[in-house]
Amino acid sequence: MEQQIVSAIKHRVLPHPALVVGIGDDAAITRVTPGKQLVTTTDMLMDGVDFLLASTDPVLVGRKSLAVNLSDLAAMAAVPVGAVISLALPRQGGEQLVRQLFDGILPLAAEFQLAIAGGDTNSWDGPLAISITVWGEVEPGEAWLRSTARVGDKLHVTGALGGSILERQFTFTPRVNEAQQLRRSAQVTAAMDISDGLLIDLARLCEASQCGAVLDLDKIPVHADAVRLSLQEHPTATPDELQAFALEHALADGEDFELLLTIAPSDPLAAQSIGEITSARGIFARAADGSLRALTIRGYEHQFRA
Amino acid sequence: MEQQIVSAIKHRVLPHPALVVGIGDDAAITRVTPGKQLVTTTDMLMDGVDFLLASTDPVLVGRKSLAVNLSDLAAMAAVPVGAVISLALPRQGGEQLVRQLFDGILPLAAEFQLAIAGGDTNSWDGPLAISITVWGEVEPGEAWLRSTARVGDKLHVTGALGGSILERQFTFTPRVNEAQQLRRSAQVTAAMDISDGLLIDLARLCEASQCGAVLDLDKIPVHADAVRLSLQEHPTATPDELQAFALEHALADGEDFELLLTIAPSDPLAAQSIGEITSARGIFARAADGSLRALTIRGYEHQFRA
Repeated sequence: MEQQIVSAIKHRVLPHPALVVGIGDDAAITRVTPGKQLVTTTDMLMDGVDFLLASTDPVLVGRKSLAVNLSDLAAMAAVPVGAVISLALPRQGGEQLVRQLFDGILPLAAEFQLAIAGGDTNSWDGPLAISITVWGEVEPGEAWLRSTARVGDKLHVTGALGGSILERQFTFTPRVNEAQQLRRSAQVTAAMDISDGLLIDLARLCEASQCGAVLDLDKIPVHADAVRLSLQEHPTATPDELQAFALEHALADGEDFELLLTIAPSDPLAAQSIGEITSARGIFARAADGSLRALTIRGYEHQFRA
Repeated sequence: MEQQIVSAIKHRVLPHPALVVGIGDDAAITRVTPGKQLVTTTDMLMDGVDFLLASTDPVLVGRKSLAVNLSDLAAMAAVPVGAVISLALPRQGGEQLVRQLFDGILPLAAEFQLAIAGGDTNSWDGPLAISITVWGEVEPGEAWLRSTARVGDKLHVTGALGGSILERQFTFTPRVNEAQQLRRSAQVTAAMDISDGLLIDLARLCEASQCGAVLDLDKIPVHADAVRLSLQEHPTATPDELQAFALEHALADGEDFELLLTIAPSDPLAAQSIGEITSARGIFARAADGSLRALTIRGYEHQFRA
């Protein structure tokens, strides 16, 4: 069965200029642009942890498995090149499942000119697990790191946050193109993607950069999904209460997959900042009057919409 | 827990000249030797399919998870550079398990100067699954493929075959160094590693190269383990019967992880050949008198020693 599945995948994979040898040999061979460095990331998504196969469209599961990896490349400002995909398929219905997963994977790969270079397809008595490794390229020294934020840098996010559980955790667009544009137009000093929530991920960036941060809570872009989710959860709340609930979702929900960036204070983009990097450790909220209060770091625990 | 595990792994990983940014950022950054192409392979090993965790030392399981990937690089004549490692850990005992797996992974990585660049560590209610992606480098056009064997080429294997189930399936040395030596000294025209058994893998090489092959059965190197295993299975067999049983193990057992190579007939190594490539499709056994009989392709079904 596995040979047939691999053969079916092979026939659906698009050619790619970087691909010298693709699916079917012991390994894939790809070209590297002269002078570039390699950026590699891997993510494993598992039934019951990252999704519930019983209640989620497998096409979306496949798409997400690749999208989270592309988001990690975006966080490094890397240009995607190739991917290898390993599957642990439940024995029952594995053949149909793999077709659906690739219905989600292949269009996203095409959208970001990513070569599907190979993989490993297996069946077992366990639940579905999907492990994807993606690589891309950067100019030496041009990758964005978590560890290079400087005191006084401004905080920036690429989009509105919160309520991703309603749908966006499966349908988000990895910020690959936005990262390339920002790499050219802005003085980005550090970056990461927001996978576990703004507060916890900002705390990680600060730990890596040995600094703290202040957030201007009124400037944090709250996604409409955060408001919708708050309305579902608190149908009788007042508008002020709803605003507070939605902000909480924007701060602590995970799976936004927007980029969190630090920008040099002299950069024009700094005008739209949501806060700034401080020498004082910890994450603080700044009120309109400039007063600070420490925020509790609260982040994402893997959740699903059952 | 996962943050602690990752931190513990990070402290055990050796520095590596190709590694610019390792464990701890959104992705790893590695150098590529100028002018080289990238060779990438991935393998997922799963409890109940590739090993039985209940009866196998997790150190050996970790070692094997990396070794099978290095074997794929060897089959392409690539020099290993880096690896990323994803784990789906059972919730119970996951922390100790990951330590043991890395007790097997890290020494093998060090032996082959492989950078452990990153990974993804997860816990779930399913069984243990380990997905490793390894990459290496080749000069453009110098990788060995399965599809380039030519009629008249001689067949060569890098070591004795059969009975790997007794232990070698976990302790084998991936033929990375042998491949580099052969790349320099011999006219290798095609290659693959023997993972599912000589017969089935030779048939795959022949299919990729659109040819057939003849095997000189008396020249196939039979491993002492194949004899030991035959003795265990058939304690009352005659010496002739034992020889036949052992040869059968050499032909059809899997997980030898020796390299199967085709060599130009003019190469000195051709003198030690075990057969040759033919235009007639199929795999044939050649008797001492030169007569041919078609062999049934029988290969490896995943097995364990319980």
